Amino acid sequence: MSEIGATAGGGVERQAATAEDGEVRTWFRDLLAEHGFDVRLDAIGNLFGIHEFTPGAPYVLLGSHLDSQPLAGRYDGAYGVLAGLHAASRIVARHRDAGTVPTHNLAVVDWFNEEGCRFKPSMMGSGVHTGKLVLGAALDTADPRGVTVREALARLELGAGASEIPALAAYAEIHIEQGPSMSEQGIAIGAVASTWCAHKYEVVVHGEQGHTGSMRMADRKDALLGAAHLVVAVNELVREFPIEALHTTVSELYVEPNSPVTIAREVRMLIDLRAETTAELERAFALLTERIGAIEEATRTRVEFVSSSVWGAGPFVERGVRLVEEASEALGFSHARVKTLAGHDATNVKDVVPTVLMFVPSEDGISHNEREHTTDTAMLAGLDVLTHVAARLADGALDRP
Amino acid sequence: MSEIGATAGGGVERQAATAEDGEVRTWFRDLLAEHGFDVRLDAIGNLFGIHEFTPGAPYVLLGSHLDSQPLAGRYDGAYGVLAGLHAASRIVARHRDAGTVPTHNLAVVDWFNEEGCRFKPSMMGSGVHTGKLVLGAALDTADPRGVTVREALARLELGAGASEIPALAAYAEIHIEQGPSMSEQGIAIGAVASTWCAHKYEVVVHGEQGHTGSMRMADRKDALLGAAHLVVAVNELVREFPIEALHTTVSELYVEPNSPVTIAREVRMLIDLRAETTAELERAFALLTERIGAIEEATRTRVEFVSSSVWGAGPFVERGVRLVEEASEALGFSHARVKTLAGHDATNVKDVVPTVLMFVPSEDGISHNEREHTTDTAMLAGLDVLTHVAARLADGALDRP
Repeated sequence: MSEIGATAGGGVERQAATAEDGEVRTWFRDLLAEHGFDVRLDAIGNLFGIHEFTPGAPYVLLGSHLDSQPLAGRYDGAYGVLAGLHAASRIVARHRDAGTVPTHNLAVVDWFNEEGCRFKPSMMGSGVHTGKLVLGAALDTADPRGVTVREALARLELGAGASEIPALAAYAEIHIEQGPSMSEQGIAIGAVASTWCAHKYEVVVHGEQGHTGSMRMADRKDALLGAAHLVVAVNELVREFPIEALHTTVSELYVEPNSPVTIAREVRMLIDLRAETTAELERAFALLTERIGAIEEATRTRVEFVSSSVWGAGPFVERGVRLVEEASEALGFSHARVKTLAGHDATNVKDVVPTVLMFVPSEDGISHNEREHTTDTAMLAGLDVLTHVAARLADGALDRP
Repeated sequence: MSEIGATAGGGVERQAATAEDGEVRTWFRDLLAEHGFDVRLDAIGNLFGIHEFTPGAPYVLLGSHLDSQPLAGRYDGAYGVLAGLHAASRIVARHRDAGTVPTHNLAVVDWFNEEGCRFKPSMMGSGVHTGKLVLGAALDTADPRGVTVREALARLELGAGASEIPALAAYAEIHIEQGPSMSEQGIAIGAVASTWCAHKYEVVVHGEQGHTGSMRMADRKDALLGAAHLVVAVNELVREFPIEALHTTVSELYVEPNSPVTIAREVRMLIDLRAETTAELERAFALLTERIGAIEEATRTRVEFVSSSVWGAGPFVERGVRLVEEASEALGFSHARVKTLAGHDATNVKDVVPTVLMFVPSEDGISHNEREHTTDTAMLAGLDVLTHVAARLADGALDRP
């Protein structure tokens, strides 16, 4: 699987709706068919494989995403989709052999564009599926070259489709942790009890073009200088909070006209703030706003907030967390309650359907990097726990009383 | 002329060897032909119009450049090329009417890629012509999309040619000041007595990719954070020097992978330092180097200097400066000795041939900006002085005794 979009550094690059994403989707479609799942595509390009035990019964959905960051690792998302397929196949086989039928039907999913590097925002497929994003707006989203999601999906063998996925009874996702805590503590299974919240702001710093050689320093309105002060200020926000309680990043930045001899007139950037509670993020943003006033004055630039996207903190359903703990106990794997700092499709789905999210360790917490690694042993342990949990979900373990 | 590559904001955009540059070159070729000049192209795409009075005699060359920055003004370069053509035509006509012949032949030039925004370094055509740049290396230079100078010139009606331009006796260039001093002091003609020097460094800040949400702040090696500190440090160098004695800029910067959710692994930027003397630039660079050590340590990144380009300070030939002063006196225009902070083709040519550089005012010193403006009166005054100076050059005024 990781030969598709393989990179020289041992990772993969399969950004959403690129040829490589298309290739891995086709590969996965064939794998679903081999395992007897019926393949469906919805209007935003989510790829489903469904197994119907009982016509009209709601579905337990398992999966994650097959798209990747640039020069990314092999495990982020891809592991969860593959594990979902194998867990569902095992459960189907068991019921076939036993001549039994679970309460719910089963399905596997590759959510479209979870990464959000080519098309913003991230978690787009699950966002549309859960009604958090409007389908038309998502399809009209353009990448930096101006290609829209609609156009990019139309170029794929498996792009957008017309299927409506039936009602969900529950969703379960397994993912690598992407942080170091489980790897450091030697924990096999993480039962995700809560998610951090994230506030992301698209910002434009406005300056004025001038000659880098002849324009007086005092007369300049250098948008890149303003932007540089802003990037530093965003980073320094963490000093106002307990250690590691606030994560802040600027990782995407575009300069206009980006000429070696012309002072920048405009810089566009994305500010990413994450913490356990919305209150902390609001305090961080208030502190940032104060600093921005000083930066505007010192650099004679203007900072404009053009858009923002948010996901809230919140717990995963307690009964689901316990299901993971019980499965780990039953199978003899070490486990702990963890939180997720990264966003996942489960972060969207949990707000509309009972959702279970579980982690396996990432070695040294390395992710979004070609050196991302999780051992086969750890992945197989995760698959066993996912299978155990999914079987109970199929039997109605999280159905409302 | 400024309808070619016209922008909505009243300026022009004709970056080197683009369709717009090609269009203005063709337009200028026709204008040269109308005025009776023979058109020649050399191997780096310098476009010449020559008038031979005496076979084998060396040439007095007049001109500047027709390419522009992105969203640039109408006057930068274009004025000097047009003025050169009209000055040369006037001198040819006078000699024709008087039945006389000057000591030297006359030629007009559009130097290829003076701006250096699409293809680095700037002043490329005059750099190759004067032997400061190697032809093959210049032709192999690629723009950010990977298109080389060779390929881009090949797509133009008037690209590279096979002509060798005969020996030069002298060069004269008129240009807008691009700074505010003449505009503020109401001076009609600037006799450029010296040029600032410039040191430009191509720098790569090395970090490591990671997840913007889940990676611990303490574990990060954020190349964009290191780059932001560097941009600020470059700007703060001016505090260590007398007011306006040092000009520093970073105006070009590329982030990899430039994803909203992945910490930057690499940032590439150009640092532009300018001052009156090389000693000041060396002191500025030494101070910057100290700060870089601290930035590398604080951000856990590595700053690599991959290349540098330099032009030295230096005087223009005194007899040439006096020619401009005498012509201004004779024609009754106010004048002053000025220095150029910007680079010009004359900055290259002066090192191999007696060279005269003169300025007309830029309103408020605005340049590399669509609002760049110089009045018709100011431009016509400059043309009269250029004609006077060029006539004397053609009569051997700067020939070595």
